Parts: sequence; structure tokens; C-alpha cells
Amino acid sequence: MSADTSIRRIQAFRDEMARAGVKAAIVPRTDPHLSEYISAHWHTVRFLTGFTGSAAILVITDKGAYLWVDSRYFLQGEAQTKDAGIELMKEGLPGTPTVNEFLATTLHEGDTVGVNGLLMSADDTARLRTVLSLHGLKLDVNFDPIDRVWSDRPALPDGPVFVHDVKYAGKSAEAKLADLRRDTAEAGADAYFTSALDEIAWVLNIRSTDVPCNPVATAFLYVGSDSARLFIDGAKLTPEVSEYLRKAGVDTAAYGSALDYLASVPKDVTVLLSGARASGAVASALQGHCMLGDSPIALPKAVKNEVQMQGIRDAHVRDGVYMVRSIKEVKETVASGRPLTEIGVADILERNRRTDPLCFDLSFESICGFGPNGAIVHYSATPETDTPLASGNLLLIDSGANYLDATTDITRTIALGTPTAEMRHDFTLVMKGHIAIATAVYPEGTRGHQLDALARMPLWKEGKSYLHGTGHGVGHFLNVHEGPQSIRLNDTMTPLLPGMLTSNEPGVYIEGKYGIRCENLVLTVPYETTAFGRFLAFETVTMCPFDRDLFDTSIMTADEIAWVNNYHRTVYDRLAPSLTPDERAWLADACAPL
Amino acid sequence: MSADTSIRRIQAFRDEMARAGVKAAIVPRTDPHLSEYISAHWHTVRFLTGFTGSAAILVITDKGAYLWVDSRYFLQGEAQTKDAGIELMKEGLPGTPTVNEFLATTLHEGDTVGVNGLLMSADDTARLRTVLSLHGLKLDVNFDPIDRVWSDRPALPDGPVFVHDVKYAGKSAEAKLADLRRDTAEAGADAYFTSALDEIAWVLNIRSTDVPCNPVATAFLYVGSDSARLFIDGAKLTPEVSEYLRKAGVDTAAYGSALDYLASVPKDVTVLLSGARASGAVASALQGHCMLGDSPIALPKAVKNEVQMQGIRDAHVRDGVYMVRSIKEVKETVASGRPLTEIGVADILERNRRTDPLCFDLSFESICGFGPNGAIVHYSATPETDTPLASGNLLLIDSGANYLDATTDITRTIALGTPTAEMRHDFTLVMKGHIAIATAVYPEGTRGHQLDALARMPLWKEGKSYLHGTGHGVGHFLNVHEGPQSIRLNDTMTPLLPGMLTSNEPGVYIEGKYGIRCENLVLTVPYETTAFGRFLAFETVTMCPFDRDLFDTSIMTADEIAWVNNYHRTVYDRLAPSLTPDERAWLADACAPL
Repeated sequence: MSADTSIRRIQAFRDEMARAGVKAAIVPRTDPHLSEYISAHWHTVRFLTGFTGSAAILVITDKGAYLWVDSRYFLQGEAQTKDAGIELMKEGLPGTPTVNEFLATTLHEGDTVGVNGLLMSADDTARLRTVLSLHGLKLDVNFDPIDRVWSDRPALPDGPVFVHDVKYAGKSAEAKLADLRRDTAEAGADAYFTSALDEIAWVLNIRSTDVPCNPVATAFLYVGSDSARLFIDGAKLTPEVSEYLRKAGVDTAAYGSALDYLASVPKDVTVLLSGARASGAVASALQGHCMLGDSPIALPKAVKNEVQMQGIRDAHVRDGVYMVRSIKEVKETVASGRPLTEIGVADILERNRRTDPLCFDLSFESICGFGPNGAIVHYSATPETDTPLASGNLLLIDSGANYLDATTDITRTIALGTPTAEMRHDFTLVMKGHIAIATAVYPEGTRGHQLDALARMPLWKEGKSYLHGTGHGVGHFLNVHEGPQSIRLNDTMTPLLPGMLTSNEPGVYIEGKYGIRCENLVLTVPYETTAFGRFLAFETVTMCPFDRDLFDTSIMTADEIAWVNNYHRTVYDRLAPSLTPDERAWLADACAPL
Repeated sequence: MSADTSIRRIQAFRDEMARAGVKAAIVPRTDPHLSEYISAHWHTVRFLTGFTGSAAILVITDKGAYLWVDSRYFLQGEAQTKDAGIELMKEGLPGTPTVNEFLATTLHEGDTVGVNGLLMSADDTARLRTVLSLHGLKLDVNFDPIDRVWSDRPALPDGPVFVHDVKYAGKSAEAKLADLRRDTAEAGADAYFTSALDEIAWVLNIRSTDVPCNPVATAFLYVGSDSARLFIDGAKLTPEVSEYLRKAGVDTAAYGSALDYLASVPKDVTVLLSGARASGAVASALQGHCMLGDSPIALPKAVKNEVQMQGIRDAHVRDGVYMVRSIKEVKETVASGRPLTEIGVADILERNRRTDPLCFDLSFESICGFGPNGAIVHYSATPETDTPLASGNLLLIDSGANYLDATTDITRTIALGTPTAEMRHDFTLVMKGHIAIATAVYPEGTRGHQLDALARMPLWKEGKSYLHGTGHGVGHFLNVHEGPQSIRLNDTMTPLLPGMLTSNEPGVYIEGKYGIRCENLVLTVPYETTAFGRFLAFETVTMCPFDRDLFDTSIMTADEIAWVNNYHRTVYDRLAPSLTPDERAWLADACAPL
């Protein structure tokens, strides 16, 4: 997008602000469901600024435009908003104010701040309101002029809804709704209202195609003590799905009627909301009788049942086959000197995964970064940046798929040609951290932040580091990122429970040279019960070899080498039956003991 | 103390409650400075119940008496309060209510709860007040009948105050007060008031003998923008100390006049208090113009200056000499068959340490636990439990001293006779954790909870664990436990900063058999600065060998063995010049490579 286009669009937006008497407008990059991945209809920040990252807040005042982005997007933000009169606000750097601080110090008493209250969480809205009122500023939470500025705005998605068969989900919608009602009552509320698309998809066992790579349906859900109502575009519902919902005790209403419905809920009904995942507009509609708390769906969704766990194990064997098939093709293509680019690698991966009868979609846009591109943590090749592969550097491939029986997410770092000693050294440091997590045993109650440093210590000892988390929760035929557990430096509050699926993905990024990340998914499983209590461990479910050419065994312990060899033996045993003889021979080499 | 005595004393206390119209009284085990170690005058809980542990809350109602203790004291609490009609409330166990929950559910609307407001933190008082008012209960924070019940109550301590020479403290009181005024102003307050005895001792560079092993003076301190007042018993001040304080800009007033003084501070003066370390009574005296926040002294006190760091290194060499001398004597005495008990070991340690010209006192009562006694984490031998040493089990020795130039705290686990394979195995697991902390490197900003699991993982992998923290902050010629940093499972908020002195003390306790703990003190020091930022590491300052007989090298990595050998070489090099030829030969053996 050209800088001129951005300038023109922001000016049109500013004209709307002047008309409404708004001095500063906040435009969050999200949707009314506070999603991380959003449909085209909600790409307002991209429309106004050209910025394509997955997290940002745009603030427009009468004089300027300011885009808050986190460290992942410092470089990309600069590049994409160049010359458009947009000031990049680098979150977390000393001297960068928060949005709230900025507004408090930039505006004058009596000024009005505008925001679409559907796009900001109840918690954030409450904080904003407090800060503004302390400074004598007003807040208009109904400021939403984007339709008037964006003439060819894409419509809301209208993909059909389908049922996620209980043979994959492991538990019926009726049973989940019963649990939800029990947990809502235990939290002291009478009803639960959710805007979170993955929660709705999970609890009703429905899926759709509304967000790329996230098989969710755009909707809101109200679950009362003896009724449930799904607010959704009727065009998305086939007669079969409507009947399915009716049988599950769920009636439907128009997507746009959710807030009005909430406003009509009797005042003596206490409605539980997730303060982090429900918007301020939703909380306002329930003024006086909502309770902000933790989502009662988050934990049951994160703890996979036995059927889901079996699906996860099965899908990862098939996904491993497609990974091996793809890596073999990539390595052989480069070795033979035939041309292949980053996008070409992504295409190979997608082609192989889509042969799977249970493959529904990718679980996120594949990241294939060759050489220096691999060092850009959230790199995604575009036609402009697409780089041809060549011998002599590393290729980082982070990819996954949504199968009906599981969501996968795997990163492998591949040596093309002969790697340097430095590459092998750095790769091995990352693997030492990966193995430390994979082999961790921990008492019940342990939270992810307590394990995070295990993955980082081999790098830290050499003055290296990575800024992203070590692990995130993974949905089940659903969003590849889900909470509430994670493995990262800051306190995560939620313990790791048996059945949780989490990524294990340390990395290191050498600017201008290469990036390394090694990612498997791990299930939390029981380990043993002793006089000291109950202990848990991780079961690695991802099945694909790590590149043998990249290990420097001279800096590995015997236990670390044994872990790699055992893992590779398991990978070979599980994948071999599904491979061609040619592939099997290749995998046998790839899995030979270090 | 006999059960009858306890019953009689509690009944006398209950009579006072009836007279005052108090239905339930809370008696915290602390002093008006909320100290962990307290003088005899404040041992009210011990007087009433016989319980001698370092943390407890006693609640007396018209019908019963209830003693809340944490897991360290479950066994001891049962034993010491047996038959005295006291119900032990085991904190943290499912089903045990908190004190506040207990009061809310036991009392009836309109009842009054009494407490001496000086003995409860402002934060805890606020929480108690909220809970009681929600249940229609009243709170009397001036209920303090103990003088009438305790006829021979020891007087407040009156030891003389002396100046801690700046050649050891490294920074003058004037300079510390100037920093404190700056930090108080930065926090948005006009003055700082502190009840914390170690804070007062540190900021004024004064010490006394008021609390066993804690060289503090009983006092309160008010530091305004251009004045400072120390509330202290005048009998404790020599003319020289009075003159020293005057020169530092500090005037003095009677200890008992602190609250009246606070009540007289003009209302436009905002006084900063530590919500955790100032009492509710102090906050009440400042009603309306106090600010509860973090102590502005905690961090500067925890970050040792260059002079202190040198003192710490020097003192640990001398302390190591006394440890080696003592361990040698203990081992040789037992080997020769001569009688020696746990208390005898403590006496040897104390005798050797007290030969040091800079030794002021022990830093805590030595813990010498032989065999099963070593498995009782806070065991302290009494004449009744004092156990003779014998070959064939482990002796755990946790001890330290307050030298003018540093406070020490060291734990060694010693094999008497030939240890079993199980002992060596467990000891080595603990050492693997100890070494993981000792060799940790971490980026600036890392907090202790992020490192804690490193110390536990070798034990966790075998289903073993320990319930105490891995490390606590250590004062400088001051309290052996100080904040704000620590290494433990829960978030500590405060990063590890260069100059902080922290313990590294994993352990494992096999009930009925033996206890193992390996403790050194470590200074946080700069490590290196790279493209990834600034990294810190620990410098181990404790100098004393670990028992070579207890290592099982078959489960150690080469790096772990090298760490022990390097550490032992350093210990030998530093201690040898101060030892007799006989001791030197013993140490050479003790430090021989594994």
C-alpha cells in the first residue's frame, strides 16, 4: 500500500472524527471477538496504515497518527508505514508511553476519546475510562466511522457452519453445556456470555471457515441456566446444523442482535464474562449485573479428553509423514541445483498436507525463512521478499495444519548444504533447551513460567537469548494459539494439567545470518506418584526428525544424545509404515543414531 | 511448658477478653516491627501456648484456642501444644480455613474481634477489616491485655547501640538518608516512616543486641524532607552514639512516642509506609495522609556496595576456616568413638567462629540434625532431643555468624562413617541442583522464580522434592533473611541485581532417615554484554568443601564434576594460608578431585 493511500484514508477518518467531536480515536487491530486472527472485514488497521502484523493499536488525533506495536513488529512496522506520517510507538522500550499515558498527556481537559467499544476488552475499557476521567477527558465508546471511510470494505464472512463430529471431539455439546452451567453456577453466576470464537466452536462442537486458518464461526453465545442462544448470521446455518443446535438445546438469533439481547436480560440474572475476552461494549450492555472473571470454558477446552489425545497422537504421525516427505523433497531439490524459493517450500508442505483425508486447512500461514529471513521471528514470505534457496545456509520452517482430529504446529530448522560450525553450535544450544523441556518432570501445580528458564539456560550461558515464549497452548481442530497455560518468563497463573497440549519451541536468531527454532508439541501426562506427591511430565507428540547434520555432539551430555536417538527411533518406527520405500530409506538415514 | 500452665494462661487471657467485650482475640507471633526474630518481651504466643516456632497466629475465643502454623511446624506444633486444649490449624491443607475465614464463620453478627494493631501489617489489617465488616463483625485494634496476664514478662531489650563503621558499611548514614529522601520524593511522598528494625539499622549504620542473632536496635524511624527522628529508648544511647546521630541529622525521641508523633504530622505531609512491614496501628495514626507502597530502603539495602562485597568475600574465607576446623573435629571425634551430640557440634562451631576478631554473634541458632533429625527442616536440638552422633548416617549442619564485615549462612551435609548408596545418590541429586543454580547465567531483569526449577529438576525427575525456597536474600552484618529478592517457585517481582547476596540451598528430606541440604551464598555479578543484552551470573562466596564421600559421580555430567573440582580448588587456595599444617593436609584430602 502506498504512503499516499494511507495518508488519504487517515485524513478521511480524521474528517469523521471532527464531525463527531472526537479529538483522538483508538483503532485496535482486532474484531468484536477480540481475536488474534481476524477476517478481512475487520482489517481496519491494515486498511488505514498498510501494517499487516497480528497485533497493533492505532491512535489518530487531529494532528497525527501513532501505531503501537510490540518488539516482533518494530522492523516490519517501520517498513510498512514509511512516509505515511505515522509515528511508530515501540511498546516496552523505555520512553514509549502506553496508549493511555499518551492520551492523558496529549489531550486537554474536556476532550473526547472515541473507540468502537466492541473492539476493546472489558478490562482494558475500564482502565482506559479510569485514566481518562482522572485527566478530565471524556470517552465515547460508540465511535465507529469506518464504514463511511472504507467504501469497498469486505462483508462479514458467510461460510457455512458444520458439526465437528463427536468421534473427534470426544464429548458432546450437551455434555459440555451441562459442565459449563455447573461451572458458571460455581463461579456464582447465573449465565455465561462469550464472544470468543474458539470457545463457541469448542463448546458447541461446530466449526466454519470465517477466519483464515482458524476454523471458527463468527458468533456470540449466551448460556443461561436453562437456555442457550447462539447469535449468528442465519445464512451460515444449513437445516442440518440448525436441527443439531436445536437438539443440543441451543436456539439462534441474528448476529447483530446480541447486545440488544443482553440489554434485555433481567437485572437479577448475574452474567459471567471473561474480563479479558469480552468487550467493554458487552459489559456495558449488562451494566450492573455482569461479573468479570475467568472464562469457565478456557480450562476444559485446554485439557484434552482421551479421544482428543488419541486424535492428537494419530494426526501427528500423519503430519510427520507429510513433513518428512516435504523436507526430503526440499533437500533433494536444493542438492540437485533445481530452483526453489521460500514460497515454493510452503507450497510443497501445503500440497502434502492437503492429501490427508482429515486435513481441513493449514493451522497458520507457513513461515519459511531462508538464511537471514529466518532471523525475522514472524517472517512470512511475500512475492517481494521470496528468496531462492541455496546451499550453505539454514532454512527455518514453521508450519502446521488443522486436521479433524488435531491441530499441528511444528518447526524444523534444516541445513541446506554443509552447515558451518557456528550454525551447528547454535542449533545444538537450542536443542539442549528443547530437550530440557521435553524431559522435564514436575510436581502437580507447576506453572509454565517455572520451567521456562530450562529452555533458555544453554543459550543464556553463551550470552544468547530469544524474546518469544517457549511454549503456547494449542487448540484441538481449532486455533493454533490458545490459553490459558503457556511456558514463558512471566507468571502464567494456570498450572500445567494432564491433557494440556503445549508447544516446546526455543530458538535463536542471529540477525543478518540465520534463525533457528526447534518446535514439537507436548502433552502433559501423569509421570509417577511418590511420597513427595504426584508428578507430571511431557509426552512429545510431534513426529519428525531434527536435522542430524546440525548436531554438535561435543557439547551434548550423554543423556541429551540418548534423548535424540530415542526420539528418532520412535519417529522412524511410527512413520515408516506410511512411507514409500524410498522415503523410508531417507528417514532411516535421518534417524540414524548421533 | 506443661499443658496445665498453657491452659491456665489462656484462661487468664480469656478473662481479659470477657472484661473487654472481645469475643475472639488474634495474637500474632511478632513484635511491633513485624520481625521474624523477636526479643523475649514479645514472645506472647510462646508464653500462652508453649509453641516455639518462628511463625504462628494464635486465635482465642470464648470457647477455644486455635494455632495457625505452616508446614514447617506441623509436627512441632502438635508436640508442643499437646493436651493444652489448642487446636492446630495447618495452613495450606485443604479444609483449613484462613484466620479471616475462621472468624467470619465462627462469630456472630455484632461480635468484636480484638488484636493489638501494632502486631499486624497495614495490608493484613485492611483485609481483616474488610472481611469482618462484610460479616457484621467489629474490630478492636487496641486490644492488648498481655501485661495483665504475664506478670513476669521480660522488659523491652535495653542493649547499647553502637555505630557500624563505614569502613564495613561502605556508605555513610548521611548519604543513605539523602538517597532515601530522593527515593521517597520519587515515590510521590514527603516522608518515610519505618518500623522495620533491619531497615533502621541499615540506613543509620547502627547496630545493637536487641534480638538474638539479629544485631538490631528496637526503634522506629521517621525521615522527613529536612528532618529525621529516631524513636528509641534513651538508655540505649551512649553520648557518642547520640552525637553520631545528631551529626547525621537525626534527633531522637522516646520509643513509646512514635504513634503520637505520627498523629501530629501535618495532614499535608504524605508519609510513605511499607504496607507489608508497617503495622495497621502506624497506618491508622496517619489516617488519610499515608501512602502504602514498597519500602524505598529494601532495594538499596539488598544491593551491596563494593566495600560490602569485599567484606563478604573476606568474611567467607574466615568463616570457611572455622567450618573446616569444626567439620574436621566432628569427623575425627566420631571416627575415634569419642562421644559427641548435636548440641556438641553446635558448640564446636560457635567456639571456632567466636575466635574471629570481627565475630559479633551467630547469625541464627545453629541447626545440627543427625540422621532422622536432619529430615525435620527447622529442627533445632534441645536438651530433650539432643542426639549422640554415630557412624552410619548423615549430619546436616546449617549455621552462620554475624561478622562486622558480613553475615554468613552455610549448610553442609556430612557423612559419618561410610554412607549408603542411597545417601550418595540423594546427595548428588541435591548437588546437581545446587550446581545448576551456581552456574546459571541470566539476562538482566531475571527474577528468582525463573531460576528455581533448575535447582529442583534433578530431584523432580526421581519423584522427589523439597518444600522450602531455594534461596533467600541475606543482610550485611544484619538479618540472615532479608528481601526483596529470593529464589522460589512463586513470582518474586524483584529482579536479581548485581550486588545482591542470596542463598543457594536445595535439599531433600527423607522422613525417618536423613536430611540433605547444600547451601552456599552467591553474589549476583555482571557476566557479559552481548548483542542480546547484558547477562548476569552468580559468584559463590561461601568457601567450604562439600563432603567428597557423598558424591556419586556416575550420575554427574563432566561439567558438574568439573564445577565441584574447580570449587574445591578455590576453597583450598583461599583457606590453606590460614590453616595449621594438620588442617591443611585434611583440607587437601577433602578438596582432592572427584
